[in-house]
Amino acid sequence: MHAYLSTAQSDHAPQTFLHQGVLKPSPEAPERIGILKDAAQAAGCSFTAPPDAGLAPIAAVHSSEYITFLRTIHARWSALDGAAPEVVPNIHPRARADSYPSSPVGQAGYHQADTACPIGPHTWNAAYASAQSAIAAADAVTSGAPHAYALCRPPGHHAYTDQAGGFCFLNNSAIAAQRLLAAGHRPAILDIDVHHGNGTQGIFYDRADVLTVSIHADPADFYPFFWGHAQERGAGPGLGANLNLPLPRLTGDEGYAPALDAALARISDFGTTALVVALGLDAHEADPFKGLALTTPGFTRIARTLTGTGLPLVLVQEGGYVSDHLGTNLSAFLSGL
Amino acid sequence: MHAYLSTAQSDHAPQTFLHQGVLKPSPEAPERIGILKDAAQAAGCSFTAPPDAGLAPIAAVHSSEYITFLRTIHARWSALDGAAPEVVPNIHPRARADSYPSSPVGQAGYHQADTACPIGPHTWNAAYASAQSAIAAADAVTSGAPHAYALCRPPGHHAYTDQAGGFCFLNNSAIAAQRLLAAGHRPAILDIDVHHGNGTQGIFYDRADVLTVSIHADPADFYPFFWGHAQERGAGPGLGANLNLPLPRLTGDEGYAPALDAALARISDFGTTALVVALGLDAHEADPFKGLALTTPGFTRIARTLTGTGLPLVLVQEGGYVSDHLGTNLSAFLSGL
Repeated sequence: MHAYLSTAQSDHAPQTFLHQGVLKPSPEAPERIGILKDAAQAAGCSFTAPPDAGLAPIAAVHSSEYITFLRTIHARWSALDGAAPEVVPNIHPRARADSYPSSPVGQAGYHQADTACPIGPHTWNAAYASAQSAIAAADAVTSGAPHAYALCRPPGHHAYTDQAGGFCFLNNSAIAAQRLLAAGHRPAILDIDVHHGNGTQGIFYDRADVLTVSIHADPADFYPFFWGHAQERGAGPGLGANLNLPLPRLTGDEGYAPALDAALARISDFGTTALVVALGLDAHEADPFKGLALTTPGFTRIARTLTGTGLPLVLVQEGGYVSDHLGTNLSAFLSGL
Repeated sequence: MHAYLSTAQSDHAPQTFLHQGVLKPSPEAPERIGILKDAAQAAGCSFTAPPDAGLAPIAAVHSSEYITFLRTIHARWSALDGAAPEVVPNIHPRARADSYPSSPVGQAGYHQADTACPIGPHTWNAAYASAQSAIAAADAVTSGAPHAYALCRPPGHHAYTDQAGGFCFLNNSAIAAQRLLAAGHRPAILDIDVHHGNGTQGIFYDRADVLTVSIHADPADFYPFFWGHAQERGAGPGLGANLNLPLPRLTGDEGYAPALDAALARISDFGTTALVVALGLDAHEADPFKGLALTTPGFTRIARTLTGTGLPLVLVQEGGYVSDHLGTNLSAFLSGL
């Protein structure tokens, strides 16, 4: 299978993760890349570096203000007296006024949704490269490949048009879907990360041309808390083009299967011609966040079910953190295709 | 002059202040109380403990969900595995969905605007007592006193109806104004803290019955960044009942005077019968936040100008942090009345 990864993606090494009031090192570590790459190769993936498709396919999804922020904020922040080595917001706008602060601290609050997306000196380059991997995988499918895997790290599905969050900066899955749309496809995104794909939902919430579907742990008591509920169905022209399938905490393979069936029924009725899979592996039973409880063979079954749709699949890596199970679960998924 | 302070206000001792990515102790320390009390007494204040007016005057300004949160969150947070000793949010909703998370972490994100308002075991009791001091000062004016001083600490002007922020939990100035309104006054609030009184503005933004005016450092490059701009004039029935007078950084006494004149002209035209002064002392030239550059005699002149209006004044303490100048500036202000 075609697979894409750029060496620049390893250069983002976040140190800061404020979790329940305690500062910890980020679990979204560069070491994830080696584990995922080895597992993908073991399952038959052949990696190449993505060609540089430029900024246009990224700017088709993200605002220019936000791109400027990601490109420049680390240098501007570093010039502040006493600033930490990473950009971490300490204020968050409750509701946006018709203003855009000039202060680096204010802009950090505007563009960073939480304290889990610190920006270091190499974050922009790594996120840009990660997006290029997603674009390359979309292009491979447009060129006729039945499946392609983008080892996107840093991940993307919590990033909005103009806001980072939850380890994510550029929304690789959304960028891939937009790329498929531009190539004439009618794309859908199926997000199977244990966390709701709130950024992806937000990007397409008012649009009818990309279907967004997410299966995840019930957000009432789980990140991202404020989105991912069943009643969020899209708005305006996009009403009905967003489907959330929240599941009770620690749902296993059996409880997962009907949700997957419902997702695929909606994807079929949308007239989908290509499917982006936002491929988190953190719905596994051993995941430290304890959201869902899929088994390793459960990932194989999901992949088999997806293959049964006959749709070309753009597989975009999302979450799943360093553990004994991370590589095993990716291999299990890819071997089911 | 009548002055109010409860011993319970000292029990809130915040330890956490994430500033530019660095965790520091909070500058909003209980030690502020002794300094302010000594200075107020030196200027002729006679302190009494406020009577307990109950929850009703607080609930007239703050939502019941929020009051429940403030009362209960520390115990619920403390039951989380590995939680820090203080409640500090790590996620912030970009826009509210029609949902309210059950998770303590989610609720912290919902109700705490930034990382400068940690909630400890005694925060609710201290904030409640601080609000009672403001209520007592309002009642003193209603009973005929020309001036009354509430040593409100923790402060209040960054707190919204349902959100803490910037060292603030309950909006003492808003609670005082609402109390005056209930007593038949037509109240206005003049906020002279160096930071825009965004919570106060937010509470009354859609209302025509309380005028809110704030003079502060330009928020484009200064906390709270997203509010405090001149174009924010109120909305709906409240359009025109909010006046922001942002000043360039490090404006001194001379530049301040015309803004104060404009504020008082608006307050006069509103038909104001009692004025709440949100009395921050951090516009001083030696303040570490470096927002404005008033001199100590400048505070005396402001007080003299306010006295010239003939309005009864409810003085509600807001910001101003531990330094050699804090007590001096409060004495300078109070001696000008």
